Amino acid sequence: MSPYIAEFIGTAMLVLLGNGAVANVLLARTKGKGADLIVIVMGWAMAVFIAVFMTASFSGAHLNPVVTISLALAGKFAWSKVGGYIAAQMLGGMAGAGLVWMAYRQHFEKETDADIKLGVFCTAPAIRSAPHNFLTEMICTFVLILGVLYLASPQVGLGALDALPVGLLVLGIGISLGGPTGYAMSPARDLSPRLMHALLPIPGKRDSDWRYAWVPVMGPLAGGAAAAWIYLHVH
Amino acid sequence: MSPYIAEFIGTAMLVLLGNGAVANVLLARTKGKGADLIVIVMGWAMAVFIAVFMTASFSGAHLNPVVTISLALAGKFAWSKVGGYIAAQMLGGMAGAGLVWMAYRQHFEKETDADIKLGVFCTAPAIRSAPHNFLTEMICTFVLILGVLYLASPQVGLGALDALPVGLLVLGIGISLGGPTGYAMSPARDLSPRLMHALLPIPGKRDSDWRYAWVPVMGPLAGGAAAAWIYLHVH
Amino acid sequence: MSPYIAEFIGTAMLVLLGNGAVANVLLARTKGKGADLIVIVMGWAMAVFIAVFMTASFSGAHLNPVVTISLALAGKFAWSKVGGYIAAQMLGGMAGAGLVWMAYRQHFEKETDADIKLGVFCTAPAIRSAPHNFLTEMICTFVLILGVLYLASPQVGLGALDALPVGLLVLGIGISLGGPTGYAMSPARDLSPRLMHALLPIPGKRDSDWRYAWVPVMGPLAGGAAAAWIYLHVH
Amino acid sequence: MSPYIAEFIGTAMLVLLGNGAVANVLLARTKGKGADLIVIVMGWAMAVFIAVFMTASFSGAHLNPVVTISLALAGKFAWSKVGGYIAAQMLGGMAGAGLVWMAYRQHFEKETDADIKLGVFCTAPAIRSAPHNFLTEMICTFVLILGVLYLASPQVGLGALDALPVGLLVLGIGISLGGPTGYAMSPARDLSPRLMHALLPIPGKRDSDWRYAWVPVMGPLAGGAAAAWIYLHVH
Repeated sequence: MSPYIAEFIGTAMLVLLGNGAVANVLLARTKGKGADLIVIVMGWAMAVFIAVFMTASFSGAHLNPVVTISLALAGKFAWSKVGGYIAAQMLGGMAGAGLVWMAYRQHFEKETDADIKLGVFCTAPAIRSAPHNFLTEMICTFVLILGVLYLASPQVGLGALDALPVGLLVLGIGISLGGPTGYAMSPARDLSPRLMHALLPIPGKRDSDWRYAWVPVMGPLAGGAAAAWIYLHVH
Repeated sequence: MSPYIAEFIGTAMLVLLGNGAVANVLLARTKGKGADLIVIVMGWAMAVFIAVFMTASFSGAHLNPVVTISLALAGKFAWSKVGGYIAAQMLGGMAGAGLVWMAYRQHFEKETDADIKLGVFCTAPAIRSAPHNFLTEMICTFVLILGVLYLASPQVGLGALDALPVGLLVLGIGISLGGPTGYAMSPARDLSPRLMHALLPIPGKRDSDWRYAWVPVMGPLAGGAAAAWIYLHVH
Repeated sequence: MSPYIAEFIGTAMLVLLGNGAVANVLLARTKGKGADLIVIVMGWAMAVFIAVFMTASFSGAHLNPVVTISLALAGKFAWSKVGGYIAAQMLGGMAGAGLVWMAYRQHFEKETDADIKLGVFCTAPAIRSAPHNFLTEMICTFVLILGVLYLASPQVGLGALDALPVGLLVLGIGISLGGPTGYAMSPARDLSPRLMHALLPIPGKRDSDWRYAWVPVMGPLAGGAAAAWIYLHVH
Repeated sequence: MSPYIAEFIGTAMLVLLGNGAVANVLLARTKGKGADLIVIVMGWAMAVFIAVFMTASFSGAHLNPVVTISLALAGKFAWSKVGGYIAAQMLGGMAGAGLVWMAYRQHFEKETDADIKLGVFCTAPAIRSAPHNFLTEMICTFVLILGVLYLASPQVGLGALDALPVGLLVLGIGISLGGPTGYAMSPARDLSPRLMHALLPIPGKRDSDWRYAWVPVMGPLAGGAAAAWIYLHVH
């Protein structure tokens, strides 16, 4: 399988299962409505585990533009492939968000809270403040990328045996650092679904909160760059 | 051990532990009454893990007619064995459902809600609508079977080392896509226990909701076929 | 390390961590008071994982008289060692229960419900009925022992690599079959702590419910024997 | 990487993720506010898993002065390195606590309960009583160190493959023995963050409860010494 197709399928799977967990806990009249936080963080952990497991042998399972860029910054991935990887990831994130909408379509119709509908697609801060939210996203992603850099093989990325450690890493980050901003850590998980929220004919939807959209892109990029710098200079 | 006996025992174990988790959380006066969703999804995950672990070396641990048919469609399993596997799985699902009834018999007697009693045996949609429910079951099972196809060895199926990944795959699907229909994904987990619900002398039971019974059979088959098609043409 | 000392330490660890989980969730003014069922079942699963992990290389980590007897019945363990193993396990279970009491002593003092105090030591049925409770304990233990028989090496028992599968097996059984009786499955986990409840100077304690005490001994033995029979004749 | 830098980074990661889990569940207006106990204990387990995984190959991942001292007492680590390891761990714990404060800064501002603010940094007993609290911390740490001593390689410490077992060991201890005192088990996890609580300009903070501060230092040391003694004389 082409690595670009693998990144597309893997990121779609990641967002389908991750955002699906949010849908199950938040949307009206689902079987998971109101379940404990452990369900959401475990859902994202399993989403990462499954997506990495399925695609590692084809593309190194980056599944996140920040992972790809950080691996390149750390000299562990060729810059020439970065653009194609990111394109595949962003499109995959859109496809995954579209599948969540298909699977939960009736629950979007019954849900009356427009913030919840948006929350199934993309993150929003618990307390809005661009600098603080940026810093939290930067710290979250710093931990993620530092872990990935130690796991990743040069010029490849993650292997199938890294799927469980990376899944558990995301479980830990979600539990411990997800409190303020919802640990986006990736444009493919936040910006792509946000775009789908804007495009899809969701009944009773609000605006897609574009003024916050840059935070879960730039914060993660800064965190990933910091992790690459530490990896190169302290390793 | 004959692969057919292994499929029978494994599917019985799967349904005993999976439906048992539902019984513990739903039925009156159990120790698990009202527990969080994490208990049910973890229960099904462990049911899959244990059943696959015990039977993989004997039968490849399909434990689900949709797995068997999809492996055959993808050219990874001989069509000549498909009928026997499915028969063993369907009978195993009935046996497992019977064991749940035996273990929780007093709690079925104390339970006054006939919908809950049925819910211990088979799935029901959160919002009833055949096309939407079909689509959700198709998406759930598509993810399951795509994962299984990547894991499975040709002409065999799953090995003991696949037990944990498949269990975690089912955990992820349950959390993320179980919200609308309860992720049946298998006639042996839905149709066989439904038949037992009709046959067993359960006090105060309702009808077995036969008009919905085709959805968790045909939706999964469609999802499995789609996964086999993707596997063959994109792989 | 002598296998008998290993069985003593391992069973003490198992009961300390397992009954400790119950203490944390049930007793007054603990940090875990009222936590979800997932905490208790995960506590027992980790108790099994840790105890098996620590002792497998010394004794085969039976840690339960029913495991020892069933392995002997299935021809996988020498009858000559059975008595010593059981004595070590029963004493270990008493030591573990004593350590729980030491760790939670102030919480036993603050707790006013005598049933809860007893419940930290040993199991009680959700709905009392000897034949039904016996049957449920038999089914629980049948699943446990069948799993252990497939994992165990002849003349030894479990290895360190079996610790996680056995822990997850006990997680699954707890979630799925623990609802009616609390899945005792072992005299060392139920009878030994019950004896400690009778012996320890616990303020405001009730009687130790001796009329129920035979059920979580005989039910598990019957379930273990049934599993050994199936293992020998269907394997 | 120097083992001292590895111990610093690893302990910082451990406290960032562990105390971060507490912040998410306790502080005002986080996304995890009021989540079940499973989230906190799983957060600490993943913190241990991730920190050990990242640093094991550089320093043996002690990440706790009690681990270092107990390994030395058991003859498995050179006394000459003990001072440097402890210094790195204590500074790492301070750094980790500082990062939690940065990530959750707005939530510290919105939180009005000074006890909760302190509770994000360090442990406090559920029922205050120095001898009982000391004993509980001693039992907790005895279990931890006994497990670590069996896992650790001489003159090294833990390897990357020990990360999951040690994480699950801490999960089990947290569930089962964390009820009375919050399972500090380490000065780097309790004393270092407590010092940061005293130093940081946290709005509306209370005193740092220095009269309790010796218990989660001396209790763990006593438990670790007891485990080393058992390891040497019963092994």
